[in-house]
Amino acid sequence: MPHGYSGKILRVDLTEEKIEVEEPGELFFRKYMGGATLGAYYLLKELDPGIDPLGPKNKIIFAASVVTGAPVSGFCRYAIVSKSPLTGGIADTQAGGWWAPQLKFAGYEAIIVEGQAEKPVYLWIDDGEVKIKDAKKIWGKDTGETQKIIREELGDEKIRIASTGQAGENLVRYACVLNELKHANGRLGMGAVMGSKNLKAIAVRGSGDINMADEKTVGERAKWFAQNFKDNVSNDRVSEYGTAELVNALNEGGMLPTENFKTGYFENAENLSGERMTEEILVKGEGCYACPVKCKRVVKTEEPYEVNPKYGGPEYETIGALGSFCCVDDLVAVSKGNELCNKYGLDTISTGNSIAFAMECFENGVIDEKDTGGIELEFGNSDAMVKLVDKIAKREGIGDLLAEGVMRAAEKLGEEAEKYAMHSKGEEIAMHDGRAKGMVGFGYMVGPLGGDHVVVEHDTDFDESALDTWVEQAKPLALIERIEAAGMDYQKIRQFMYLQNHFSMMDSLALCVFSFAPVRTLTMEHLVELVNAITGWESSLWELMKQGEKRVTMFRAFNVREGFTPEDDSLPDRLYEPIKSGPLKGLANDREEYEEAKRLYYEMMGWDKETGAPKKSKLIEMDLEWLIDELKI
Amino acid sequence: MPHGYSGKILRVDLTEEKIEVEEPGELFFRKYMGGATLGAYYLLKELDPGIDPLGPKNKIIFAASVVTGAPVSGFCRYAIVSKSPLTGGIADTQAGGWWAPQLKFAGYEAIIVEGQAEKPVYLWIDDGEVKIKDAKKIWGKDTGETQKIIREELGDEKIRIASTGQAGENLVRYACVLNELKHANGRLGMGAVMGSKNLKAIAVRGSGDINMADEKTVGERAKWFAQNFKDNVSNDRVSEYGTAELVNALNEGGMLPTENFKTGYFENAENLSGERMTEEILVKGEGCYACPVKCKRVVKTEEPYEVNPKYGGPEYETIGALGSFCCVDDLVAVSKGNELCNKYGLDTISTGNSIAFAMECFENGVIDEKDTGGIELEFGNSDAMVKLVDKIAKREGIGDLLAEGVMRAAEKLGEEAEKYAMHSKGEEIAMHDGRAKGMVGFGYMVGPLGGDHVVVEHDTDFDESALDTWVEQAKPLALIERIEAAGMDYQKIRQFMYLQNHFSMMDSLALCVFSFAPVRTLTMEHLVELVNAITGWESSLWELMKQGEKRVTMFRAFNVREGFTPEDDSLPDRLYEPIKSGPLKGLANDREEYEEAKRLYYEMMGWDKETGAPKKSKLIEMDLEWLIDELKI
Repeated sequence: MPHGYSGKILRVDLTEEKIEVEEPGELFFRKYMGGATLGAYYLLKELDPGIDPLGPKNKIIFAASVVTGAPVSGFCRYAIVSKSPLTGGIADTQAGGWWAPQLKFAGYEAIIVEGQAEKPVYLWIDDGEVKIKDAKKIWGKDTGETQKIIREELGDEKIRIASTGQAGENLVRYACVLNELKHANGRLGMGAVMGSKNLKAIAVRGSGDINMADEKTVGERAKWFAQNFKDNVSNDRVSEYGTAELVNALNEGGMLPTENFKTGYFENAENLSGERMTEEILVKGEGCYACPVKCKRVVKTEEPYEVNPKYGGPEYETIGALGSFCCVDDLVAVSKGNELCNKYGLDTISTGNSIAFAMECFENGVIDEKDTGGIELEFGNSDAMVKLVDKIAKREGIGDLLAEGVMRAAEKLGEEAEKYAMHSKGEEIAMHDGRAKGMVGFGYMVGPLGGDHVVVEHDTDFDESALDTWVEQAKPLALIERIEAAGMDYQKIRQFMYLQNHFSMMDSLALCVFSFAPVRTLTMEHLVELVNAITGWESSLWELMKQGEKRVTMFRAFNVREGFTPEDDSLPDRLYEPIKSGPLKGLANDREEYEEAKRLYYEMMGWDKETGAPKKSKLIEMDLEWLIDELKI
Repeated sequence: MPHGYSGKILRVDLTEEKIEVEEPGELFFRKYMGGATLGAYYLLKELDPGIDPLGPKNKIIFAASVVTGAPVSGFCRYAIVSKSPLTGGIADTQAGGWWAPQLKFAGYEAIIVEGQAEKPVYLWIDDGEVKIKDAKKIWGKDTGETQKIIREELGDEKIRIASTGQAGENLVRYACVLNELKHANGRLGMGAVMGSKNLKAIAVRGSGDINMADEKTVGERAKWFAQNFKDNVSNDRVSEYGTAELVNALNEGGMLPTENFKTGYFENAENLSGERMTEEILVKGEGCYACPVKCKRVVKTEEPYEVNPKYGGPEYETIGALGSFCCVDDLVAVSKGNELCNKYGLDTISTGNSIAFAMECFENGVIDEKDTGGIELEFGNSDAMVKLVDKIAKREGIGDLLAEGVMRAAEKLGEEAEKYAMHSKGEEIAMHDGRAKGMVGFGYMVGPLGGDHVVVEHDTDFDESALDTWVEQAKPLALIERIEAAGMDYQKIRQFMYLQNHFSMMDSLALCVFSFAPVRTLTMEHLVELVNAITGWESSLWELMKQGEKRVTMFRAFNVREGFTPEDDSLPDRLYEPIKSGPLKGLANDREEYEEAKRLYYEMMGWDKETGAPKKSKLIEMDLEWLIDELKI
């Protein structure tokens, strides 16, 4: 190998109880650098289309990247990749924290888990020694108990554990995976896939180092970077208020998702704000490996709900979903909901979105107190919200229906209910208004994952003088939200595509989106420099952007193989209806514009305008010609 | 403007005798950085399709780039861009030397010349003072006399002059433009366009500096760069033997174009080699602005031809075209032919190719001694070759026919002759065998310029371990020629596309292809660093590669607007026939493979598979949506 980068893939067959280590070689890692790009490679090669996501034939992949674990802010993340039980398409969901660096220190880039254990197990990775362990003691336990018991059993407090809770065991379709009880691979039901495999947790301890080609450069750059990052991320507001710093600003702009997307303005948003959290219930901020920003929250409350600080505190998305989206203005209730989600292993976005759906169904008589077991499930009922979190995790009563996600629940409840189901491709939509942020809405529509907010993290309407040409997209992107009337133009679609590839590249490298995306002081040049210093490669932003494009292309190929069509690239009707109140009252997306933009976007991506499938020529351009036969094109 | 890069465009209307200076602003230069990308912008905006390339409605643009004139090896070039009288498509032809830096020192990025002077003129650019001057004294004169007279008239020996000779005045369709009598904008008839406008020369003197954002970095990098460049370019063989260092190597590999592409092996190639030139007739090597390599030759001979050293010496392409292609093994005759071409302003490649065509016609009885005025026009007749150069420039006898180029000459001579016409789109093919270098052949086929060797400068069959993935294309490319059997595969087509965009980017920046293309020690990272230090931008290889792709897209759009179809993307039959002799005897291209690859390549480029026209989506992606109406798509 010319540069010497090497990496190991751990493969665990739970059916056969077989553990193997594969070394696919440097060229493989150059082609599939990590995260879901690497994961999608294995899924596309090894999964048959049409398999049951919750059956033994699905595989679940935990993938760091070639740069993960370097002591640099934001280089701590990993993706879980599988076929989603929520959408039936590809799942890619990422978490920060401390688990992924440990995996790298133990010597692995990724873990492929296949098959299905006969009885509950967990995986114990102790550097080179890997064991499938009995999980009897932890099955049925929440994530906190699970972590405690495993650490006791293995006798090491420093073991990092990614586990699901009861929600995963109960196959809630949006059950999630957490490490350190608060860093969630939240979306698309990866906890359910673990549950279906009788896999409760993966515990990992690594004593090695990651092998960096130029440690000195990494160290120097990391030091400078950490300081700059801290100084520049939203003027330190993120350190002080967490991601919840957005609540007030978005509400003032009229774009805080409220009442199941009926509006973007929530009168009592102030009660949910990051400022309020810091003043009233914050214990401390916490961060991820090698990062000084500490954007994670730790909260503690006694009344009216007792919230255990070990489960962290609510992020912006959680406050949106369990709070404003349900018209709940009680930060303590939201914090309790968050704690429960983290204990049970529930995705807070899908949970809150499902509860809001149920609330709207209730208010419109689609369901009633008989269905809810007596709960007055009205918007704003904070106690009902907390109760429903519990019911969903346990699949009790109405919770059993909502555990299927809003798409499936609405199918069962009938046509009226479908109007209240805010999802794309079966995934509940995240807490960004797809009208106020029109290109985020477009991302919900065409994104491979569904209602995911990380397709294009930010909107694409930038300051004209500096950014009215796409060439500027190669730079870190200024976080400027679009607040004027919705509308499509060629420039926005172009910017969407480039931004999408840009964020996709960061996901492929398993980077924190805060690290390089929105902050101008940390340039793409620095990123390339770091990638090169770690791997020993002579990479470039060109190569990295192509890596991002490759990931999107692979995702598309996966979904097409599963039978997805352009019909699946759609938005809920509500996002074509006007925002009900607030500063953006009356704003709506134009359906025809969005449909036209969709076809144009397909063609721009090298996909067939009619079918949305990647063309042979695009697969070849992306060095993915092995997919031509798979897609029968 | 955010960064502060500014540039001026000089516009000269020869009909109205009007001179204007335009400042299109920084964003314009960020979008169209220079060379033919900038030139194509004006042609696409301002030319009506279908106009006569030799009429007053054509425009001719002399364009440096945003980085030209920085004191760095290879940053000295400029492009002449116009509608070609040879192909009817877009022309882009570049030269190094000293003229372009002077243009920048005088304060201009580019000159647009339009209209037609009533009587012969030349242009005199003396910093801010620009004059249209009477050219009576120099009309009818060769380039050497022209340069001498202008310098005397203006009283400054340091004035740099780009001029054409009698060939341009006589509208030889492949008449060229030279600066310093030896740096040629050789191809596609830019001398004829000047002739048609009664524009003999452009003289320029600049006393300013180019405005660099970070002079210190440029200086440091330039110093390091110059030394590395010199040390690493083909182990200094280029310094010692000029580009002619290739002659022996290519012949030994069986790929030296010989006998009008009948074969790739010339028995007497040794007589034409760079080694022989250095031993026997070399006066000295000469270089371009700020470059220590000195790859240009200066030769002097007395017998049997007297060659004046001021016109330089033959390059590899010239030795191929006037030498082996005509089976002429006399380096003195080739040097004389070269001197005459540089005096008259003739492109040596088209000239030699046209003479070989005539020789094959003569040997096959298509023309005879009556046509040639008594010349025994057989392959290997060096004296006949020299005589024909003279006749072509003066359009005397058979020279008048050959001055039209092989496509038009063959049309007049009939079907038999067409088999001997080695052109693509009307441009005579350069001195690289399109079978031995299969992807260079593909470049002749699909390239926008015709038989140009700079579409993909090098072949794409690289060492597997290091380069079998396109991601490696972002690095400087190892010059590894393909010598095994011809054949297409997906990887080659992918690499072709990326390499094409890569070289196109270098042309857009008006860089010497030797500077960044083939030498691994000078990385793309350095190029990006230099571009940024000069312009003050935060560019990236991604942006630069997109600039390259944009140029190719604009060229395609121009040609499509002129009526070019996929039929025009073709190769002469001979390149589908086996090489007659030598190490690669029997090697041929497969027509079906090439046709299939062509359609795949169209689709890869975002062009319509059937028509070859850029799709709306690609124009939008390239920030060229203003071309949608132009192309009526």
